[in-house]
Amino acid sequence: MAPVIKLSSGYDMPQVGFGLWKVDNAVASDVVYNAIKAGYRLFDGACDYGNEVECGKGVARAISEGIVKREELFIVSKLWNTFHDAERVEPIVKKQLADWGIDYFDLYLIHFPVALEYVDPSVRYPPGWHYEGDEIRPSKATIQETWQALEAVVEKGLAKSIGISNFQAQLIYDLLRYAKIRPATLQIEHHPFLVQQELLNLAKREGIAVTAYSSFGPASFLEFNMQHAVKLTPLMEDETIKNIAAKYNRAPSQVLLRWATQRGLAVIPKTTRTEIMASNLNHTDFDLSEEDITTISGLNRGIRFNQPSNYFPTELLWIFG
Amino acid sequence: MAPVIKLSSGYDMPQVGFGLWKVDNAVASDVVYNAIKAGYRLFDGACDYGNEVECGKGVARAISEGIVKREELFIVSKLWNTFHDAERVEPIVKKQLADWGIDYFDLYLIHFPVALEYVDPSVRYPPGWHYEGDEIRPSKATIQETWQALEAVVEKGLAKSIGISNFQAQLIYDLLRYAKIRPATLQIEHHPFLVQQELLNLAKREGIAVTAYSSFGPASFLEFNMQHAVKLTPLMEDETIKNIAAKYNRAPSQVLLRWATQRGLAVIPKTTRTEIMASNLNHTDFDLSEEDITTISGLNRGIRFNQPSNYFPTELLWIFG
Repeated sequence: MAPVIKLSSGYDMPQVGFGLWKVDNAVASDVVYNAIKAGYRLFDGACDYGNEVECGKGVARAISEGIVKREELFIVSKLWNTFHDAERVEPIVKKQLADWGIDYFDLYLIHFPVALEYVDPSVRYPPGWHYEGDEIRPSKATIQETWQALEAVVEKGLAKSIGISNFQAQLIYDLLRYAKIRPATLQIEHHPFLVQQELLNLAKREGIAVTAYSSFGPASFLEFNMQHAVKLTPLMEDETIKNIAAKYNRAPSQVLLRWATQRGLAVIPKTTRTEIMASNLNHTDFDLSEEDITTISGLNRGIRFNQPSNYFPTELLWIFG
Repeated sequence: MAPVIKLSSGYDMPQVGFGLWKVDNAVASDVVYNAIKAGYRLFDGACDYGNEVECGKGVARAISEGIVKREELFIVSKLWNTFHDAERVEPIVKKQLADWGIDYFDLYLIHFPVALEYVDPSVRYPPGWHYEGDEIRPSKATIQETWQALEAVVEKGLAKSIGISNFQAQLIYDLLRYAKIRPATLQIEHHPFLVQQELLNLAKREGIAVTAYSSFGPASFLEFNMQHAVKLTPLMEDETIKNIAAKYNRAPSQVLLRWATQRGLAVIPKTTRTEIMASNLNHTDFDLSEEDITTISGLNRGIRFNQPSNYFPTELLWIFG
């Protein structure tokens, strides 16, 4: 069993989970099913990943075969930008639950602190960032309005815990001023090229668990042909990481994950290969020395990949910094 | 006359002003008086600078001598962190106006997006960041609550325009969701080591004028003995800046200011030397080539000095990023 993190909501969250971003619809059901068989219990999904129906089928198959019970799973999903208006929140949570074929989420996050105009799911789903072409249409929903709607989702039993993703310090401080239910988790891009130690310190001080996404760094972004991802040496081929991995007789990927989990973070690596599933999941049975942890943290270059304006014309969306 | 920037509030703001941070109480009255004689019309003050009474005396002297009229001046002040609670805003604005000896501010800014527990001015003024020792005491005021209180200040005629300082993208987007009066200006640290071009683009798209502070970079922070300020080559001695200054036969300080103003920003340099006052104010009568502007922007290293945690123990306040 993977270790767990106690959330401020009182629930335990598996520290190692499975990330569903970019898992193709054609294979998503099998991938989730195989991941459950490999021992994964946390699945990190989102409306925006466009594969919740298929992921839910993998869960249903595993449950129907008696491999796992629903209450042993920890299913995470996220509110997309176009559903920030208070009256849109509960209906879309219910749709997402129906897509998964479950009746509650263990954790439900605000995906990005960006409120966009509502798009009816019958018109376009998932709605994405743009209305038509390059057009971005803001909605008038404040983060406070959206957070209060998420608090109501908890009160209705549709989510056990709620949290935030891609939030920075100033907006977190503001959220903590009005939150009746404090965010249980903060999910952020985190790898040795983007350590953000002070943001981690802030979260720790405030009792917010942090989940790292894109733990392998630029590798997650090569398919978008991002120039600064393509040009960098992949972290798994970085000499520092490779040398440390050799010392512990572990895969570089395990070293990258352990660097995060040993420092208290949760991780959600993705792979479609079953042998790698096991390697990623079962990486917590060794400890890096403090010196090696410091060495890996020293690779920090403050390089962020998942900035919305990296995907789109820079005039449109720039939210980090 | 210095050029002006048309604000979204409809008022004109001088593009070149005088910054009052770190102007000693003993000389503040004379400094302001001399600056007015040198031609400055915008003064950028704040509760936190602790010198508003003295600055007001300089203004009063210049007005009483007929050098300038109140309506020709553009006086800026800022709301300190401990006055974010809605009911504290109007009283402290009135106190600050009384300190200055004027009956309205031309522009009033939220100094930092950090709401701290109220400190009665009779107990400690200016209140600073800490309650006692290293203790930071948050208040429950949201930025929305504070902004709405500032909007009320405009409605009462106590400020012509309102704005924000030290806000980052996510919080600006959120503010724009609920603002009935949009922020007229955003004041940020800005120099060739911290260009923040995307934040400038965001402000431009949203019609928010940007005022650069610490235009000379690390020089403003040497007296705090900040290690990364002390170790850097001062911008005015940077070879790139010196070479460009020589080419135009200008002072390096003028090149640094022109780089900002030519790109549309307002600047608020400080000096206590009257000959430098004139040099800083009258720097807009030449243009840098586009190539030189690009070269200066290329010095960007993303180095921020005015991070509160740079002054205090890092566990306490980290608001940028």
